[in-house]
Amino acid sequence: MCNNCNYTIHGAHHHFGWDRSIPPVEKVAPGSTIRFECMDSGSGHFNANSTAADVATLDFSKVNPVTGPVYIDGAEPGDAVKITIHEFEPSGFGWTGIIPGFGLLADQFTSPALTVWKYDPVSMEPAMFGKNGRVPLKPFAGTIGLALAEEGRHSVVPPRRVGGNLDIRDLSSGSVLYLPVEVAGGLFSIGDTHAAQGDGEVCGTAIESQMNLTVTLDLVKDAKLSMPRFTTPGPVTRHLDAKGYEVTTGIGADLMDGAKAAVSNMVDLLGKLYNLSADDAYMLCSVCGDLRISEIVDMPNWVVSFYFPRIVFE
Amino acid sequence: MCNNCNYTIHGAHHHFGWDRSIPPVEKVAPGSTIRFECMDSGSGHFNANSTAADVATLDFSKVNPVTGPVYIDGAEPGDAVKITIHEFEPSGFGWTGIIPGFGLLADQFTSPALTVWKYDPVSMEPAMFGKNGRVPLKPFAGTIGLALAEEGRHSVVPPRRVGGNLDIRDLSSGSVLYLPVEVAGGLFSIGDTHAAQGDGEVCGTAIESQMNLTVTLDLVKDAKLSMPRFTTPGPVTRHLDAKGYEVTTGIGADLMDGAKAAVSNMVDLLGKLYNLSADDAYMLCSVCGDLRISEIVDMPNWVVSFYFPRIVFE
Repeated sequence: MCNNCNYTIHGAHHHFGWDRSIPPVEKVAPGSTIRFECMDSGSGHFNANSTAADVATLDFSKVNPVTGPVYIDGAEPGDAVKITIHEFEPSGFGWTGIIPGFGLLADQFTSPALTVWKYDPVSMEPAMFGKNGRVPLKPFAGTIGLALAEEGRHSVVPPRRVGGNLDIRDLSSGSVLYLPVEVAGGLFSIGDTHAAQGDGEVCGTAIESQMNLTVTLDLVKDAKLSMPRFTTPGPVTRHLDAKGYEVTTGIGADLMDGAKAAVSNMVDLLGKLYNLSADDAYMLCSVCGDLRISEIVDMPNWVVSFYFPRIVFE
Repeated sequence: MCNNCNYTIHGAHHHFGWDRSIPPVEKVAPGSTIRFECMDSGSGHFNANSTAADVATLDFSKVNPVTGPVYIDGAEPGDAVKITIHEFEPSGFGWTGIIPGFGLLADQFTSPALTVWKYDPVSMEPAMFGKNGRVPLKPFAGTIGLALAEEGRHSVVPPRRVGGNLDIRDLSSGSVLYLPVEVAGGLFSIGDTHAAQGDGEVCGTAIESQMNLTVTLDLVKDAKLSMPRFTTPGPVTRHLDAKGYEVTTGIGADLMDGAKAAVSNMVDLLGKLYNLSADDAYMLCSVCGDLRISEIVDMPNWVVSFYFPRIVFE
């Protein structure tokens, strides 16, 4: 699949969590282009016949495997690794789950739920949700990171300044990500591929989907980057925006409460507009709705808005 | 300017703050289309010759006048007012200020600053910022609201469930806003017109610009709406997105801290990329950069991202 690759890192070379002591799979020169075989975030636990009952047997010690690590020659603390994201090789199968205890509205959604998705990995046409929903796809890697300076094993779940489980929807083909290096060689790993996700990933999962992918790893010496940054080569929401949006808000003095209110209001609205169950609406919000901060200055109340793309049902 | 209007509410009929005891200027039937003459949020304090020194003499008892109120026949608590936003009549002049004590990075930006803008109100071509910056315009009303049930005068600054100073960039032509009614007649007022703003309005001001505008006011009986919601007729960021984005992040356990970090990182980045002063970068972020919540579920760290549209300098 990749004619210009210098290396392929096979899926067998994955790890759970971040640990600077994990030996690198490969040492590469800056400028190397590398194909990574990635697993999905459930390590293959779900398949087309899975149901909500299978959520209970998900092994949390094996969630979110990342493929790597790769040692970049010359990378030192203070530098940045520049990651140019090339093509994805999607699998055509995906899942979205409500996992009790996890997700923005965990207090409200206490029972497991599961949606399994089938999509055309060649055409990448929108994936059907029920009989009427069509969810536009935009593949990206949810987890892209480097090892932490701090010794020991660190959970893969939270993202950090070295990246990791960033779950930024726009880290898709053509985007260029910069991550601050904390250990010699950087120790780059990647995984947690998603076929689609909205800003926020509000139910806690996207369209989780196994994919392989190709990136180029470069080095920016002495970049002194405090946090990850990236550039996109063009528009980021044109797959979603053509028919406009339904938008709900949460207004108040706390951004987290505002975000919860905005999403909860959208779950209610989608139920009324499209006769969706709350579980379905919540999962749909996670895979294609966007959390935005409309204003963060009109003291003491901020406005968090949730944008649901009308194209899904129009 | 408005051939189909049933009423014009003149700019003389403005008020400062929300108070259910303010007598309505007009009583209208649901379905009425009304032209509002609005002042800018500085009540005309700034002009093309204004400088940062004029920020100090801004009279805070006269900021953010809104035109109205209009009593909608039949509106009762529990209903919603449906506001269809039609055309804007922009003035061609605008201002953006850094007001000490106000804005997301108030701790970092303690001195006043001012940008005055001139734009073509007919073509609505991007407004020049310095010699090289071109800021795409999209007019909207920052403050659209109804009176609160609670008696007395309430500051216009914070938005509330009845709307008010929402500062939602996408409440522009064609959008339809629903606001919950708390008092008989709703008591609708509008103002605080902006020629452009990014999500967040991070420095505390947009391109503040006097405009008149036209809306249709309808009634949805017994809507039982908890918070404002709206629909957009189409895409919301196509004026900004064609060349992609520079994106900075703030990662951590607090969304407010994350937002501050993301914007502060963008101020630094714009300084490096385009040789902008911190004040200029901050104001530019406010008028065209977007705050998004990329993920809000990967415990305990959330990712807030700030998107700056590259079209401004490309």
